Amino acid sequence: MRNIKLTIAYDGTRYNGWQKQGNTTNTIQGKLETLLSRMTDEAIEVHGSGRTDAGVHAYGQVANFHTYSDLPLKSMALYIRQYLPEDIDLVDIIEMDERFHSRLNAKSKCYTYRIFLGEHNPVFERKYVYVVKEALNLEAMKIASRLLTGEHDFTSFHQKKRMKRSAVRNLSNISFEQKGSVLEISFEANGFLQSMVRILAGTLIEVGLGKREPLSMTAVITAQNRELAGFTAPAKGLFLVQVTYT
Amino acid sequence: MRNIKLTIAYDGTRYNGWQKQGNTTNTIQGKLETLLSRMTDEAIEVHGSGRTDAGVHAYGQVANFHTYSDLPLKSMALYIRQYLPEDIDLVDIIEMDERFHSRLNAKSKCYTYRIFLGEHNPVFERKYVYVVKEALNLEAMKIASRLLTGEHDFTSFHQKKRMKRSAVRNLSNISFEQKGSVLEISFEANGFLQSMVRILAGTLIEVGLGKREPLSMTAVITAQNRELAGFTAPAKGLFLVQVTYT
Repeated sequence: MRNIKLTIAYDGTRYNGWQKQGNTTNTIQGKLETLLSRMTDEAIEVHGSGRTDAGVHAYGQVANFHTYSDLPLKSMALYIRQYLPEDIDLVDIIEMDERFHSRLNAKSKCYTYRIFLGEHNPVFERKYVYVVKEALNLEAMKIASRLLTGEHDFTSFHQKKRMKRSAVRNLSNISFEQKGSVLEISFEANGFLQSMVRILAGTLIEVGLGKREPLSMTAVITAQNRELAGFTAPAKGLFLVQVTYT
Repeated sequence: MRNIKLTIAYDGTRYNGWQKQGNTTNTIQGKLETLLSRMTDEAIEVHGSGRTDAGVHAYGQVANFHTYSDLPLKSMALYIRQYLPEDIDLVDIIEMDERFHSRLNAKSKCYTYRIFLGEHNPVFERKYVYVVKEALNLEAMKIASRLLTGEHDFTSFHQKKRMKRSAVRNLSNISFEQKGSVLEISFEANGFLQSMVRILAGTLIEVGLGKREPLSMTAVITAQNRELAGFTAPAKGLFLVQVTYT
């Protein structure tokens, strides 16, 4: 049986996130499974590297699926690109060892949160940025991000209230890049909890606006209490950029 | 009476073009007039530098309006930016001499046509590019563009069949720039006929695809016959970039 790895980009605006949920077929996973099942004439199950929330975008989501089909990869790529909706793209397709699993083998992920700064309407980027009209204190945000970096229990930055599994993650890096009017904050970790990047981004924005002290981050982490962290920044500013495997 | 000059950016996707037409209120001009009339409590008429077709975008459309209002420009800018829909932006606002007219005083305009090259779906740019999956011969397009440049009767590149006024325009420059997967073709002229840039772009694309000889351009111009030029490239790839005044 073949094991095919897909790298997928999508505009998440009109989807209910990556993952199929009950009768909700309007998901990226759902679109892919329907298309791949038709292509192979099998009931294909697609395994993503992880969920993305409704409205979150991706440059490089990774997924894999098993098939008995002997279609060459090039023919698969042609078929998939022909039938994908225009807001989903097949970036890459390769064949993997049968043990490869996009979620279980992922070593780290990188997400970028995009903030449009200033008084203008980001006419052509409005679905891919969160607009902040007030000035942000970037130095304060960088101090806060240094305290957030590292291995911590991120319960304070987790949407769900009742945790069954560990909320410990290694947030190995937070970096800032200004591209014209857009401030990009990138987060690398060995894994993320639900809405964790959006809550980290929202908290850093509140620091940048002077609503929080950058040095308070340590206390927020230690409290393990979602109410002490900042707001959940809107999904439309968030991009899953890359999933890294060994 | 004051004369206010506006520079406007817009995503033309959901509008019926710049200009009001009878009962069609879903135009950029219509949106601006409604907003400015409410702001000044006068019946404001907005004069654009020229029409843009339905679906065409702008980085720098210019318009002006007269008003008795004594609102400071800064307050006007705040009001306009607050109430404009998110797909229209006020780029700039300044006060002009009372004789300034955005259309009559325009010396030249620059339009850019954006082509996405390759087999991928331009997920995040899909509303702002025209996709060409086959390779384009850029050298052939450049030869053709040199023959199109200059002062000509552009009847062959004009959507309307019956002309009342002169179709002579001075197309002073056509330039090419590759930005990642996007090929941008920019056109500068002292004025453009309806759909002229889209027909020029469509003709150049057909040259790039090898469907037309670059050296045939002179014959196409001379014929003064729309049927001899190429297809009208889709509106979504076209941007009004700049209007230049003395």
